[in-house]
Amino acid sequence: MFDIVKRLLVGRPLRSERLGETLLPKWLALPVFCSDPISSVAYATEQILLTLALGGAGFLSLSAPVAAAVALVLIIVVASYRQTCYAYPSGGGAFVVSKENLGESASLTAAAALLVDYVMTVAVSVVAGVVAITSAVRSWAPHAVAISVGFVLLIALANLRGVKESGKAFAIPTYGFIGLTYLMFLVAGARAAFGDGVPPAESASQPLPATVHASTVAVVALLLRAFASGSTALTGVEAISNGVPAFRKPKSHNAAATLAMMGAISVTMFGGITFLAIKLQARAEPDGNPSVISQLASSVFGGTSALFYLYQAATAAILILAANTAFNGFPVLASILAKNRYLPRQLHNRGDRLVFSNGILLLAVAAVLLIIGFDANIDRLIQLYIIGVFTSFTLSQFGMVRHWSRELDSVDDPSRRRRIRASQVVNAVGGVVTSVVLVIVFATKVEHGAWLAVAAMIVLFVVMRSISRYYQRVEAEVASEGGTPTLPPRVHAIVLVSRLHKPALRALAFAKATRPDQLEAVTVAADEEETRALQQEWEGRGIQTPLIVLSSPYRDVGRPIVDHVNRLRREDPRGLVSVFIPEYVVPRWWQNLLHNQSAFRLKARLLFTRGVVVVNVPYHIGRGEQGWLTAGEPAEAGEPRKPAKAT
Amino acid sequence: MFDIVKRLLVGRPLRSERLGETLLPKWLALPVFCSDPISSVAYATEQILLTLALGGAGFLSLSAPVAAAVALVLIIVVASYRQTCYAYPSGGGAFVVSKENLGESASLTAAAALLVDYVMTVAVSVVAGVVAITSAVRSWAPHAVAISVGFVLLIALANLRGVKESGKAFAIPTYGFIGLTYLMFLVAGARAAFGDGVPPAESASQPLPATVHASTVAVVALLLRAFASGSTALTGVEAISNGVPAFRKPKSHNAAATLAMMGAISVTMFGGITFLAIKLQARAEPDGNPSVISQLASSVFGGTSALFYLYQAATAAILILAANTAFNGFPVLASILAKNRYLPRQLHNRGDRLVFSNGILLLAVAAVLLIIGFDANIDRLIQLYIIGVFTSFTLSQFGMVRHWSRELDSVDDPSRRRRIRASQVVNAVGGVVTSVVLVIVFATKVEHGAWLAVAAMIVLFVVMRSISRYYQRVEAEVASEGGTPTLPPRVHAIVLVSRLHKPALRALAFAKATRPDQLEAVTVAADEEETRALQQEWEGRGIQTPLIVLSSPYRDVGRPIVDHVNRLRREDPRGLVSVFIPEYVVPRWWQNLLHNQSAFRLKARLLFTRGVVVVNVPYHIGRGEQGWLTAGEPAEAGEPRKPAKAT
Repeated sequence: MFDIVKRLLVGRPLRSERLGETLLPKWLALPVFCSDPISSVAYATEQILLTLALGGAGFLSLSAPVAAAVALVLIIVVASYRQTCYAYPSGGGAFVVSKENLGESASLTAAAALLVDYVMTVAVSVVAGVVAITSAVRSWAPHAVAISVGFVLLIALANLRGVKESGKAFAIPTYGFIGLTYLMFLVAGARAAFGDGVPPAESASQPLPATVHASTVAVVALLLRAFASGSTALTGVEAISNGVPAFRKPKSHNAAATLAMMGAISVTMFGGITFLAIKLQARAEPDGNPSVISQLASSVFGGTSALFYLYQAATAAILILAANTAFNGFPVLASILAKNRYLPRQLHNRGDRLVFSNGILLLAVAAVLLIIGFDANIDRLIQLYIIGVFTSFTLSQFGMVRHWSRELDSVDDPSRRRRIRASQVVNAVGGVVTSVVLVIVFATKVEHGAWLAVAAMIVLFVVMRSISRYYQRVEAEVASEGGTPTLPPRVHAIVLVSRLHKPALRALAFAKATRPDQLEAVTVAADEEETRALQQEWEGRGIQTPLIVLSSPYRDVGRPIVDHVNRLRREDPRGLVSVFIPEYVVPRWWQNLLHNQSAFRLKARLLFTRGVVVVNVPYHIGRGEQGWLTAGEPAEAGEPRKPAKAT
Repeated sequence: MFDIVKRLLVGRPLRSERLGETLLPKWLALPVFCSDPISSVAYATEQILLTLALGGAGFLSLSAPVAAAVALVLIIVVASYRQTCYAYPSGGGAFVVSKENLGESASLTAAAALLVDYVMTVAVSVVAGVVAITSAVRSWAPHAVAISVGFVLLIALANLRGVKESGKAFAIPTYGFIGLTYLMFLVAGARAAFGDGVPPAESASQPLPATVHASTVAVVALLLRAFASGSTALTGVEAISNGVPAFRKPKSHNAAATLAMMGAISVTMFGGITFLAIKLQARAEPDGNPSVISQLASSVFGGTSALFYLYQAATAAILILAANTAFNGFPVLASILAKNRYLPRQLHNRGDRLVFSNGILLLAVAAVLLIIGFDANIDRLIQLYIIGVFTSFTLSQFGMVRHWSRELDSVDDPSRRRRIRASQVVNAVGGVVTSVVLVIVFATKVEHGAWLAVAAMIVLFVVMRSISRYYQRVEAEVASEGGTPTLPPRVHAIVLVSRLHKPALRALAFAKATRPDQLEAVTVAADEEETRALQQEWEGRGIQTPLIVLSSPYRDVGRPIVDHVNRLRREDPRGLVSVFIPEYVVPRWWQNLLHNQSAFRLKARLLFTRGVVVVNVPYHIGRGEQGWLTAGEPAEAGEPRKPAKAT
């Protein structure tokens, strides 16, 4: 039943050999890995305007230099990560790079930062997309939480079906958004040059507070805060460097090329939108509705034109699908962490469709909780964003600097040394720039909610370290020193019997067949009458195995047996007790209600008793003859059987 | 944690020997078993008045003969059940009596009727009690459902703690209600004889429809319906005959005496209340609020007197506690049915406090569902009532007639024969009367909701028959023909291995120690790299047991192993496959999250594969040395060990 639903939703299981088939060409890799940085141009400009407006109308003119600074950082980060694609063809996320070059603590910090930020990407992108929708269709605004959660689940489902399908499904909105944005620039240019000019944005006449005559410190602080807000444009840039193995060959080259393409698209779109916003005097509305980008499209295309609505749809689509970047990055990172024993091993298993299903589900659950917890409020959510991104950027870049230093130690060829030096300079610049940005982001955002993201990172850090220590302890404990296994010195077998029926006789026969050093049948005297009847039948049949009767003053079956086992262990501490439990197996689940489930509870208790091996001897009810019970040699004969043969 | 809460609520577990200590003296047995029939006088008169009022004001005068008829039936039924107490000292409920004398179908009908009626008793009594409370404190009326459910859970808890405590807790309200009712009669008589007279009831002036000039048939029908409604006074009379074993010795005599006492109390109270109601011209309000009995108390004691409020409290208390009768009867009956294999065996287990905990819980759940489903509406609930009671009365009485006939066959002494004849006549009269009442109840109530109770009885009947047939089938299947157990002809052992660590080596060593005919280690190639490493280490250590590698194209561990086992079974259908599973056991539950739970799922799958024995070889993580692993003889030596010794 559950299986059928799962098949309908997720599709047929795929064979492991098909893993290679799901590799991505560049034109599909772009929408899969880059919808996050590309889509963030839809709100990055708005975040700058929103922050600058706090200073008054006069500050809006500063948006151009702030946006230029953001674009510069974007270019630097893209250039830095291109080096990583070449240096780490098997996937060089911040975690791997810091682990190999900066040590465990740095790598766990990077991992914690990335995990938190992937969750934030899903929450922020989806909520922003839904805000875009509800700006167009105002009546849906009260259902923002439900719509957002629905989209998260849809994306998770698409990813559970597999990478290739999701690439195709997401290509159209991504390329649609890119194409329509460039079309908007063209139309705006054409109308300004040859036509009637473009009308100002609808918020142009909005009254703003007069510019305060503020101190230089306050102005700088405002500019830095605006810059930090605009840096949301950089989230998700590292996704490609993590996902190099998903590219077609030559993997590193294709990944670096896709990264460059993404950088070019992002910078031009971000610059163009900011330019248009300044020209059309667009201002960010306090509740984000209508968004700056929709005001621009409305002015350029006309507020009731088909193109305007198409552009709104594309904006919403790419914003929501940007979450997909995280759904590609998070499970891969979680799987790498699990392989390195920092997270539970289940995150390293590939599911039916060859994707890391558990990671996908975990991310979806975390994002849904965040969306519900923050009531799908984009302004509050965005405060938690990007601090993690720049943490991992910084660690990754400095890790790369160290990486190139090591390379230099083993390379003598001068031209190769020169190229390595160049790469190192790129990463060093990247590291310095991103660390400066990190300080700015932390300083300007920590009191507005970023502390929560920092706290989450610290918790993740501690949890991952503890998990690693736990696995190491277990590993040391179970490691065998070599040599071959040794036999237990003595095996004491007990067979649990309540009545003398076939299941019990089967268990008894099998126990005999295992040739224990000592064998006894054990029954618990829960009902005096039944116990007496069992004892009489036992003697009447002449069964030679002794029958031990355990008293049970509290009518509990488990306790007397566990006590008996512990007594046997005390008498012979080096020996082993094997407990044979005859068990009914019924074909239908509800039939279990008709049988005492004491065997099940007892097994759980015995599992926690040391030095005990539990043997289930099932008897299949309603499925006819049970094979060997009625045939074979008599068990009481007691002659030794031939020893185990290693066939 | 769960354990602590359970202990706080239910108390310490009791030893089985203390079963005798919880026997009841007569003065405690009366409140435990008879609060139902005694409390029903609180609404039986009202039901008669309510029905007769449908015919108009003139019909109210007919309440005296109708009540007299009900009282007569009550006396006859009490007399009949006294015979049963003597004939069945080990508990002679309708089920046992019909089973021994009328056969299976009759007994199952009686049992189904009683089970349904016990549930109805709880629901109706508690809801009626809450109606009494909400009549006094009007503002609580909207919370009737919640209050009713709360009371059901409280009574269930009292019963889970044990019979004796509940006897004491319930004695005060029962004797309080009885005493205050007689006091009301005394005060009324005194005021009428020596004082100012008793004012009429507050509903005396209520306008009623004029008496319709109806046909004789309609008049008779109305009288019969009033009689059927008044018969609610008889519910629960059989509880004592079911509970004879709970009495102190001489059990039968004490039970019969208590029954007679109960009959005397019920008849006098029912008669007195009806007499008072007629004298004070009390009328049933359509919504039952204020109740007739509270109107009487208000007139006699004065509507604001302390005695009036005390009487209201006692009425509410005994009504709610009347449910306790069912909480004594239902679990015992369910346990008898379970012992006879008509219900799941769990209902026959005595819990920590020596009561049939599962039956108590089942009854509480059913009553709560009924109360919620019927929105605590007494008028709708009462329509489902008493049809079951009279079904079981009738079957029980005719069963007793047959019982005495059999006794006569084996008795020659004339005086004893005479006494048996007398008993038989009593039961025959009882049977005829109750069967006539049953027909009347069915005819007048079936369309007002009783069909639901009938349907429930039919379902229970069918379910119990099916359960019985199922147990019989299983019994026949597992019954052994005698003789001693035989050895399985061949045992093929496989040890599941994923890595060469201590848990796996332990499992391998133990598998060898069981001397199977064939032994192999099996690993699933879920991860190519790990599998290769395992194979190399296996060969490097020189382990002679062969290592079989199963391919797993879908990365699933369970399927390849089950397929492998089935292949072995096909090759040797009479042989047995024993699967040894090394298993991590961790001390804390959350540590399980850090280990793949594939062993658990695999065990469940193997349990449903035929001809397979599953052996769990647990390794306790974090609990130091595991005993025999590092010591003992080398397992590879292969010399035969001494055969099992029957110590």
